[in-house]
Amino acid sequence: MSPDERKQQLVALGVAALADRPLEAVTVEDLAAEAGVSPGLVHYHFGSRQGLHSEIVRTARDAMLHATEPRADLPPRERLRDTLDRFVVFVSAHDATFYSLVRGAASGDERVRATIQHARDVLAGHLRDVFHEIGVAPTPLLEAGLHAWISFAEQALVEAATDPRVPPGELAAFLERSALGVVTALHPGTPPGAGTDV
Amino acid sequence: MSPDERKQQLVALGVAALADRPLEAVTVEDLAAEAGVSPGLVHYHFGSRQGLHSEIVRTARDAMLHATEPRADLPPRERLRDTLDRFVVFVSAHDATFYSLVRGAASGDERVRATIQHARDVLAGHLRDVFHEIGVAPTPLLEAGLHAWISFAEQALVEAATDPRVPPGELAAFLERSALGVVTALHPGTPPGAGTDV
Repeated sequence: MSPDERKQQLVALGVAALADRPLEAVTVEDLAAEAGVSPGLVHYHFGSRQGLHSEIVRTARDAMLHATEPRADLPPRERLRDTLDRFVVFVSAHDATFYSLVRGAASGDERVRATIQHARDVLAGHLRDVFHEIGVAPTPLLEAGLHAWISFAEQALVEAATDPRVPPGELAAFLERSALGVVTALHPGTPPGAGTDV
Repeated sequence: MSPDERKQQLVALGVAALADRPLEAVTVEDLAAEAGVSPGLVHYHFGSRQGLHSEIVRTARDAMLHATEPRADLPPRERLRDTLDRFVVFVSAHDATFYSLVRGAASGDERVRATIQHARDVLAGHLRDVFHEIGVAPTPLLEAGLHAWISFAEQALVEAATDPRVPPGELAAFLERSALGVVTALHPGTPPGAGTDV
């Protein structure tokens, strides 16, 4: 195994560990034992436990962003729904990873917080693109509403994506309508979905 | 000053300290120096720094819940709007306290987390009452939507309540419409605000 492959293996083990325990409980020693290497080698690759955590969160975040990358070939409203369908699938398949990311937003570790904030910015950017394309004017309150909706979606996904009583399609449709509902809440005169077939 | 008055004074100083620094940076020693008493006396009243933090957060939370207590004499939709108007006023007047409460939701201290979770439960309960009174059927997704909307409102208030470009009434109206929008997102056939004049 090359040094790069070894590092990737260790990060992958760290991401997998999030299924059992929170990030703070993932230690250099545990990971070394799981990989059958010395703690010194883990330290060599990541510098410290903080460095290890930072890489684990970055890799988990990139997996989430990759799974929810919008399809540029779709028109805005279909693109939103398609992205949300895949988001629900991602969270139901990787619920512990997603919870770790959501919790990481309030981590005591600044690098972890910045990594998660980047994900929120990317997700807010996708929705900002949709709003722009359907003709919603950018205002300070729209910007606050975009970020607020990201928090809304995080909470709804944490609570409902693995709830067997909630069909995945129903959750995705609820998230879609609530995102478009932000526009209606800003511009009460506009019926929901108006202008979305441009 | 009686022991109870002294304790209240120390907690009040602790809540006031949140305007300058995060909860984690509020120490027994600083507070003792501000109150002109010995650190031993602060320890006597709160047991530990954790005990002190727990009391500070509980007092700040109770101030927020008191300021946003719904007026039972109002019909549901007017009650929602009135509560939200007062919520915006509270956050714009006590923004640092509110940020501390929002951040406390992810505190490493279990007592602090439980204190904030209680506030979220109370606020979700107020909205649940409104939804119940206007005839919205309780479902698992409505419950997830209630909690998601609390996260939405927290983020919107953190970002917009002190933004001079956003008039307070506009923010409260946005929050009101977004709360009712949760119902529309759950039951797309229902026009926003339907049934609210019961």
